[in-house]
Amino acid sequence: MSNLIYILNGPNLNKLGTREPEIYGSQNLEDIKNACKNLGDKLGLEIEFRQSNQEGELVDWIQEAGEKAQGLVLNAAAYTHTSVALLDALKTLSIPSVEVHLSNVHQREDFRHKSYISPGVTGIIAGFGAASYDLALHALANIIKS
Amino acid sequence: MSNLIYILNGPNLNKLGTREPEIYGSQNLEDIKNACKNLGDKLGLEIEFRQSNQEGELVDWIQEAGEKAQGLVLNAAAYTHTSVALLDALKTLSIPSVEVHLSNVHQREDFRHKSYISPGVTGIIAGFGAASYDLALHALANIIKS
Amino acid sequence: MSNLIYILNGPNLNKLGTREPEIYGSQNLEDIKNACKNLGDKLGLEIEFRQSNQEGELVDWIQEAGEKAQGLVLNAAAYTHTSVALLDALKTLSIPSVEVHLSNVHQREDFRHKSYISPGVTGIIAGFGAASYDLALHALANIIKS
Amino acid sequence: MSNLIYILNGPNLNKLGTREPEIYGSQNLEDIKNACKNLGDKLGLEIEFRQSNQEGELVDWIQEAGEKAQGLVLNAAAYTHTSVALLDALKTLSIPSVEVHLSNVHQREDFRHKSYISPGVTGIIAGFGAASYDLALHALANIIKS
Amino acid sequence: MSNLIYILNGPNLNKLGTREPEIYGSQNLEDIKNACKNLGDKLGLEIEFRQSNQEGELVDWIQEAGEKAQGLVLNAAAYTHTSVALLDALKTLSIPSVEVHLSNVHQREDFRHKSYISPGVTGIIAGFGAASYDLALHALANIIKS
Amino acid sequence: MSNLIYILNGPNLNKLGTREPEIYGSQNLEDIKNACKNLGDKLGLEIEFRQSNQEGELVDWIQEAGEKAQGLVLNAAAYTHTSVALLDALKTLSIPSVEVHLSNVHQREDFRHKSYISPGVTGIIAGFGAASYDLALHALANIIKS
Amino acid sequence: MSNLIYILNGPNLNKLGTREPEIYGSQNLEDIKNACKNLGDKLGLEIEFRQSNQEGELVDWIQEAGEKAQGLVLNAAAYTHTSVALLDALKTLSIPSVEVHLSNVHQREDFRHKSYISPGVTGIIAGFGAASYDLALHALANIIKS
Amino acid sequence: MSNLIYILNGPNLNKLGTREPEIYGSQNLEDIKNACKNLGDKLGLEIEFRQSNQEGELVDWIQEAGEKAQGLVLNAAAYTHTSVALLDALKTLSIPSVEVHLSNVHQREDFRHKSYISPGVTGIIAGFGAASYDLALHALANIIKS
Amino acid sequence: MSNLIYILNGPNLNKLGTREPEIYGSQNLEDIKNACKNLGDKLGLEIEFRQSNQEGELVDWIQEAGEKAQGLVLNAAAYTHTSVALLDALKTLSIPSVEVHLSNVHQREDFRHKSYISPGVTGIIAGFGAASYDLALHALANIIKS
Amino acid sequence: MSNLIYILNGPNLNKLGTREPEIYGSQNLEDIKNACKNLGDKLGLEIEFRQSNQEGELVDWIQEAGEKAQGLVLNAAAYTHTSVALLDALKTLSIPSVEVHLSNVHQREDFRHKSYISPGVTGIIAGFGAASYDLALHALANIIKS
Amino acid sequence: MSNLIYILNGPNLNKLGTREPEIYGSQNLEDIKNACKNLGDKLGLEIEFRQSNQEGELVDWIQEAGEKAQGLVLNAAAYTHTSVALLDALKTLSIPSVEVHLSNVHQREDFRHKSYISPGVTGIIAGFGAASYDLALHALANIIKS
Amino acid sequence: MSNLIYILNGPNLNKLGTREPEIYGSQNLEDIKNACKNLGDKLGLEIEFRQSNQEGELVDWIQEAGEKAQGLVLNAAAYTHTSVALLDALKTLSIPSVEVHLSNVHQREDFRHKSYISPGVTGIIAGFGAASYDLALHALANIIKS
Repeated sequence: MSNLIYILNGPNLNKLGTREPEIYGSQNLEDIKNACKNLGDKLGLEIEFRQSNQEGELVDWIQEAGEKAQGLVLNAAAYTHTSVALLDALKTLSIPSVEVHLSNVHQREDFRHKSYISPGVTGIIAGFGAASYDLALHALANIIKS
Repeated sequence: MSNLIYILNGPNLNKLGTREPEIYGSQNLEDIKNACKNLGDKLGLEIEFRQSNQEGELVDWIQEAGEKAQGLVLNAAAYTHTSVALLDALKTLSIPSVEVHLSNVHQREDFRHKSYISPGVTGIIAGFGAASYDLALHALANIIKS
Repeated sequence: MSNLIYILNGPNLNKLGTREPEIYGSQNLEDIKNACKNLGDKLGLEIEFRQSNQEGELVDWIQEAGEKAQGLVLNAAAYTHTSVALLDALKTLSIPSVEVHLSNVHQREDFRHKSYISPGVTGIIAGFGAASYDLALHALANIIKS
Repeated sequence: MSNLIYILNGPNLNKLGTREPEIYGSQNLEDIKNACKNLGDKLGLEIEFRQSNQEGELVDWIQEAGEKAQGLVLNAAAYTHTSVALLDALKTLSIPSVEVHLSNVHQREDFRHKSYISPGVTGIIAGFGAASYDLALHALANIIKS
Repeated sequence: MSNLIYILNGPNLNKLGTREPEIYGSQNLEDIKNACKNLGDKLGLEIEFRQSNQEGELVDWIQEAGEKAQGLVLNAAAYTHTSVALLDALKTLSIPSVEVHLSNVHQREDFRHKSYISPGVTGIIAGFGAASYDLALHALANIIKS
Repeated sequence: MSNLIYILNGPNLNKLGTREPEIYGSQNLEDIKNACKNLGDKLGLEIEFRQSNQEGELVDWIQEAGEKAQGLVLNAAAYTHTSVALLDALKTLSIPSVEVHLSNVHQREDFRHKSYISPGVTGIIAGFGAASYDLALHALANIIKS
Repeated sequence: MSNLIYILNGPNLNKLGTREPEIYGSQNLEDIKNACKNLGDKLGLEIEFRQSNQEGELVDWIQEAGEKAQGLVLNAAAYTHTSVALLDALKTLSIPSVEVHLSNVHQREDFRHKSYISPGVTGIIAGFGAASYDLALHALANIIKS
Repeated sequence: MSNLIYILNGPNLNKLGTREPEIYGSQNLEDIKNACKNLGDKLGLEIEFRQSNQEGELVDWIQEAGEKAQGLVLNAAAYTHTSVALLDALKTLSIPSVEVHLSNVHQREDFRHKSYISPGVTGIIAGFGAASYDLALHALANIIKS
Repeated sequence: MSNLIYILNGPNLNKLGTREPEIYGSQNLEDIKNACKNLGDKLGLEIEFRQSNQEGELVDWIQEAGEKAQGLVLNAAAYTHTSVALLDALKTLSIPSVEVHLSNVHQREDFRHKSYISPGVTGIIAGFGAASYDLALHALANIIKS
Repeated sequence: MSNLIYILNGPNLNKLGTREPEIYGSQNLEDIKNACKNLGDKLGLEIEFRQSNQEGELVDWIQEAGEKAQGLVLNAAAYTHTSVALLDALKTLSIPSVEVHLSNVHQREDFRHKSYISPGVTGIIAGFGAASYDLALHALANIIKS
Repeated sequence: MSNLIYILNGPNLNKLGTREPEIYGSQNLEDIKNACKNLGDKLGLEIEFRQSNQEGELVDWIQEAGEKAQGLVLNAAAYTHTSVALLDALKTLSIPSVEVHLSNVHQREDFRHKSYISPGVTGIIAGFGAASYDLALHALANIIKS
Repeated sequence: MSNLIYILNGPNLNKLGTREPEIYGSQNLEDIKNACKNLGDKLGLEIEFRQSNQEGELVDWIQEAGEKAQGLVLNAAAYTHTSVALLDALKTLSIPSVEVHLSNVHQREDFRHKSYISPGVTGIIAGFGAASYDLALHALANIIKS
């Protein structure tokens, strides 16, 4: 039986592909979802892929992941830099979690260098565009196996 | 006729009891709700007890409390440290309000030492676990009487 | 055919008129909406006027404005000072946008001097009370014309 | 046999009632002492109530409380914001302790938002005027019982 | 009889049109003066339009406006970010005043995000290029009427 | 009948004359006391002149001055830079008070540029050596007269 | 033959009496000038009394004082908090100089607590209203004599 | 023909396995090297694996990688937080580079949250122990292919 | 004839042995006093060993040491981090002085990394437990001899 | 035909030679002017040499240089550390400009380490006394030639 | 058999005796080495005494000490204030280590007040000139014995 | 006989010409070396020109320059912003030294605005590309002559 992985995406990621493509690339979120599902099939991971602009809904879903899933991938987007609520939600988890970013946030504005959520995750992957998600799935598959 | 008190709880408090019990204790939010209702009966206070992970829903409920209730207890949890919106909602109130925390936030991470909402409340009670709620109800009963 | 303008209002602005009237004036949000619609008629602008206490719903609406409208007026209220998500939503826009404030925020608490969203808008108008909205509509009408 | 509680008051609290009554209320320290003794009688607590303008004398008394009493209430007044010595004295204690303030210190000057002593106490109660002491006694009675 | 409005312009604005046109636009200060006078005619406002590179001369003129005019528009340019003297001059006024900026200063260097003069004005308008002046005149006309 | 003035001196001022004379001059505190008494005689002021190394004793004496004297001169020395307790004591006063310093503290270490007590006094005189006391007495005599 | 003292006044002090009288008192600058001249007569000091809104003109005059006068009184007003040029001018002097302020600047905005010029003067007198000038003249007379 | 990847390791990583194993795990650097070479064989990557305690030697090797290799993995260890020289070396590269860390540096001391080198790399992977290297090789293989 | 050394101990050191023994060790202050006296005998040093919780009393004793002793050992405990008065007292000394700490303060809270008194002493010894005192006596014996 | 170079000197440089000669050397500004003119003759540069204590006059002259000259040397003295207006004036230039300082400002007070104008110039030369001007002329001659 | 102690010296200490002798004394490093060896003989300690200007070589030697020696004395000189690599090397040790400084670093520039390496050592000795090394050897001998 | 000048170049300058040519120009370090030697011939200066990526090797060479040379030119590149060791090495010198930079570092990242080494050199030249070296040689020739 395959393992369930939640992949949660934060605010404005639903505009991917049209939003500042020089930073975020031309793939849209549907493309990434499909790529994740394809890779999930290969790695024996079932993928639950969602997006929300609501900080509180992301908190709900992280809690839900803690109850139903074996791993979590979180691209918190803007909330990365402002949300203690997401950090606290991550701290309630006993499953492994990965913070991902499409862009290398350290090449952008100063306020994007600070992540509130990093202390709450297992690991961090940033800067590889859509491939950041692939690497996160590899990382989780590896942790779940061991 | 008894007075109505809103007790509002912020993000991740629905996970109480299972979440970091060494910090937050082993009681869950249902236990606290029941204890508050029992104490409310003794003090002649009707209790409206709610929890939300949504910053905006908490703003809605604070406004609602301002219209319907005689007092407010707010455990804003993570939003304590990041929300100007909650502060502004509290400033619209003419009823007394109490900020409560289960843990002594000053023994934790630096960013938890800063409260945006404190300037908007009547008083603050922190560090007594579930008993912080009891003390808040005593405080409100006392203010409403006088 | 008239141009469509979204006017979006953030948390606690639904309490306008009763909330700290010495700062925000005695007009309520319905009054401002009507004044905006009247002025819109004169300027050939159709007005979509909304309010929400939810950060994420404001993000949704800004994205919607980007798809349907020719201009945006945003009074983000408390979220002005804390929301990177609103900034990112504004950055997805190709239509002109105006940040408005009723009060002169620079005469108030220090944390209200910082705006996260200013780098994402075309221009800023603050301190003229309800007239800030009128000036914003004039500004947008002017930009759309040219 | 009743439990002994030390209630220690810091600098300038001997001027209560005449000092800035718009902030601290019109009760003087003798009034608060009497109210505490009355409440102590009800709760089965013996009250030792003292005031000093000397930081070092407060350190002495906290140490003494640690040897003789079952609980401590400390209104450190101005020393709250400057004294590491009081923090260290509190850390030598194995009895429960409560930091109290008459006013909501977060509505005052910035330097009053910082408390050196909070990490050394069990809990904190602020903003309820003389009732802050009552709530502290209730809190201690509750802890001692359990 | 028409009302008198002083429009005062700070350092380097005399180079407008040739100076960093990608930021400040291609209109020169004479163009803006003419546009203001035209709009003034429509709004029943007499315009006194001046420019100086001297901080002290701007102080003199603000004082003069306080004695002779019914309103003030001030583009303090670089002195916006360094001058307490201009703030103090603005505070001597009993007439309405508007701080204007051609560019959205929040998209530029950090030191341009700080305005010393904002607390001294009625309102602020920034980012609309030369139209910022038009909006300021509308705002003043509106205030003077009411 | 002459007016009573308290002149209070803080820590290490008892070592004046021998302590870093290049900063504090060669007069000792007894010399200053005598000079003050002589000037007091001329100005119709009775002088109560004291020194203490104890922060709390200075608090006691400021309170005492508030009850017995018509004016206060305070050289708080090192406590100037660290004591909120002295500030609070000064705020309980309804008599005029003058903060004095022998040296120009702004020519010394950074931490001596910050005075906690300045917001609590009527005026400040620094840098004139022992003559700072004379000027303070003139200032008080002048205020008491008017 | 009497000694010559320059008394130099900075920006907006020409509006004294009408400008924020609750802070600066109701005397105008002419009143202060006359009082200084009267006191100068008694102390054997000839008074050169000037005001300018120009930072550079104040620099000129400080240099001139260094060549012609035996002492300097400087109320730099707003330039106190922003001018390194005035500091450097003061440092060229070999005559005694006194920084004066009408108000107790430490009871006002934070940016008024910082004085750039203090390290360049002999002494500082603040908070005594117009009497600050009198005390400065006494101080200078005293230094010149000795 | 396989692609050449430089894997460079910074100060104290030669002590891996014995150094703070609760943070860095029990594998030593030789184990990681072997794992990297095995994975490299699968991915068609030739591995050049080195360690140095010398900041300057790491600069040399990064430059060498820029001339000879198709990709770079850098675990700069302590120099991550202090070295502008490594950043400048990374900026000379036209090949893809990955910053890796064994531990989640955001759960450790504050000075480890700051990375000087992040703006100079393609992407960042942290917190997965020795698997961070594997993920980096996958990431580089992926970039080189596309 | 032997030399006299003052060893002065600050707040809460009278609780040594019972206070946080994992930080301060299990020896009490009497043990340290005896060890110092024994070592003093060997080194030809007479020991005056005192403890006080009063900042001002420590100031008194440092001054007294300056008059009677040939050297000073000071463990200012909590006052290390807050007292300018102790620094000023140390600066009045012409005898050698040593700041000692039982624990390595740099492994503890941030506010313990700052010492106000270090600039006023000859040398600093920290982290060796009770042996810090022994090393201080060796250091002083060595300085006095040479 | 020779090229025209403006050499502009800021506040208090007219006092050179008499002002703090241990920092600025014993040459006066006339000496430097003559040396510059002599060197200009050799390098084929016509020299326009001016000094002003007025920030605004320096702005005027920088603008004038932009219209008439082929290069600019600016010793902004105290305004270096406080003037955004000079920076903006420099940014209007298309000719090369050199910031010069007589002293090595990094060996002086902290506020002299910050230069507002550096981002607006071509290059910076500091610390060589009057020779800093010579080097600046060499630098400009070199740039104009190439 | 005697115990082996590494004494490692950082950058520029090879210039001791000629380098700023008013700060570092007139002894050169050879003198200190000889004194250490002499004292080592008395204390039964074998001394390995080295100096390097290379941060990485000091890291190597600290690791080597961890394998071969019973104790470490480290005068990291300038690297004290900038090196996380040295801290990490110290943290790999299970032998006692002492940070020494010749001068009292707290009487020098601000950046010398910060030590990166202090959290990694057993204890700290500073300010006693060459005698700091002697005291460190006494301290280590004492720890090794117990 | 000609004077010997050391020209020392820091990390990554060996990549000049290929590294970010839009910032550093297209000349490589060999070109600059040749230009320096040519100019040296004209000025009677013998040039010792070296480059290292090692901080410690630069320290060695600065010390060597102090023993063998009459002047030093140092382009410390990245170490400019992080190295106290270089500052300390410079302070051991009695020969004149010049800090040079190819680019105007004040137009780049914030961390490049801070130079640790500036207080240790005679003068600073930045922003003239390869000509910065020429100017430095002129400056040294001038100092050595006088």
